[in-house]
Amino acid sequence: MKPQKLALIGCGLMGGSFALAARRAGWASHIHGFSASETTRHKALALGVIDQAHESIEKTVEGADLVLLAVPLSATAQCFEAIAQAMPSSALLMDVGSTKSDVVAVAQTTLAGKLSCFVPAHPIAGKEVAGIEHADADLYQNRQVILTPTASSGVLQVALAQEIWRSLGGHVFQMTPAQHDATFAAVSHVPHLLAYALINAIAAQADGAQWLAMGGPGFRDFSRIAASDPVIWRDILMANRHEVLRQTALLRQALEDFETALQQGQPKVLQQLIAKASATRAAWRLSGSSDSDV
Amino acid sequence: MKPQKLALIGCGLMGGSFALAARRAGWASHIHGFSASETTRHKALALGVIDQAHESIEKTVEGADLVLLAVPLSATAQCFEAIAQAMPSSALLMDVGSTKSDVVAVAQTTLAGKLSCFVPAHPIAGKEVAGIEHADADLYQNRQVILTPTASSGVLQVALAQEIWRSLGGHVFQMTPAQHDATFAAVSHVPHLLAYALINAIAAQADGAQWLAMGGPGFRDFSRIAASDPVIWRDILMANRHEVLRQTALLRQALEDFETALQQGQPKVLQQLIAKASATRAAWRLSGSSDSDV
Repeated sequence: MKPQKLALIGCGLMGGSFALAARRAGWASHIHGFSASETTRHKALALGVIDQAHESIEKTVEGADLVLLAVPLSATAQCFEAIAQAMPSSALLMDVGSTKSDVVAVAQTTLAGKLSCFVPAHPIAGKEVAGIEHADADLYQNRQVILTPTASSGVLQVALAQEIWRSLGGHVFQMTPAQHDATFAAVSHVPHLLAYALINAIAAQADGAQWLAMGGPGFRDFSRIAASDPVIWRDILMANRHEVLRQTALLRQALEDFETALQQGQPKVLQQLIAKASATRAAWRLSGSSDSDV
Repeated sequence: MKPQKLALIGCGLMGGSFALAARRAGWASHIHGFSASETTRHKALALGVIDQAHESIEKTVEGADLVLLAVPLSATAQCFEAIAQAMPSSALLMDVGSTKSDVVAVAQTTLAGKLSCFVPAHPIAGKEVAGIEHADADLYQNRQVILTPTASSGVLQVALAQEIWRSLGGHVFQMTPAQHDATFAAVSHVPHLLAYALINAIAAQADGAQWLAMGGPGFRDFSRIAASDPVIWRDILMANRHEVLRQTALLRQALEDFETALQQGQPKVLQQLIAKASATRAAWRLSGSSDSDV
């Protein structure tokens, strides 16, 4: 039942971790990998993440049971076109992109007769460091994985996609691409923007470097996501900009509530605003986590 | 040299952790504690954090070598007045408040002849949970401790304050109260505001609860500080509101740079903005931490 030949398009953190996890789960006996970079292909082979490296996408996906696309969003269209030409019609194709409406739109114009093979996926996992040298078989363990099947996605492909992510330790959810993009604009993309904006706002001030050096554990955790990869996050924010801008407008209003209470010297209002946020966050739990992992 | 009789005014997370750490460091052979709450006094005794509980501040500080004030900022003035009446002139008095200009101003109007005893202190440590039951002898280990001596602070008191915090594992820095408040508006108070505002902005939307449930590890870390105590943080933000508002205005501008790049479809500009933040954060290290503790 489980795929034997895995074709990895993009040998980075996400794809490499998928390959390591798949191998450990006992399927994916042959892993073929494509990377545009020769250095990356060599690293992927040397690290034992892939069994065979290819210089063309077409060769990589020939005869594949499962094709995993794990490249920055801006490379998606070009990769889909090459994949569609050479992938067997019986294969399952998934991506791991952090936005879904744009990927589905690109799939509809590029995958042609292979559209039914495609099940869009977004595992909620990552690191602030990119590259295959950071690949980790545990990356998807206990993490949420969102599938956003299209009207064209094959029923068997969707079922297999669920089975595959569960075998890697993921908790699988389904939603529409639009629901996905609204959700992650709010709980992922805007937090990244805020962390970037805070760092830039501080660093631009005369004493900014000294101030940053004094940051404690709260600052460390709040700003951790600001270290994430500029190309990957440029693509995510651009692709989902309408939802992101809708959420930053609401964030500005919520921030203004706090600023007004401070400006007008209203400690009771301020306390209520904090208490609301504090109660919400104190009750929050990372999906699939133990109680202590908050 | 080291203080034997420690008087703890306020038996919460910060004060309780100080007492446990002092005891472990081998000084503070007698620890007296005051709390306005009878329940807290009983807990502090039962947990072995203090040796003796008192219902009045005056009795607690009688004959003390060291008085540590660890109460919400809004209770500072009242506590200082009681402390000044009964504390020996030879004692060292420190607070642990997260703002310093306001505490120094209050000290100058309430401590009278005991002003030279006072060395304002701010250990950069805490938890999202309050209360003595979470007290932890390791809380100050490898954490920064900011001292902001006033013109009236005694030289011996300042030297003893440094020695004490170092004995608890802290890294001691000195700055002026104004420098302190500008620094921590930027790297602590505004991050708290942003985390609160984000949670409130999401929770206020129709699908907000569902969206929050999908947050991953990035959301967890970014929003951790939003769970912090509403009374303590009301006081901090109110006390430092001028610096906080100056920083939120700059944050809004930095956020607008990102929003404009998104609105105008400028991926290159967006990538530059992210790259600046990402490089700054990737090079950042928590003071006193190992390289892996970023």
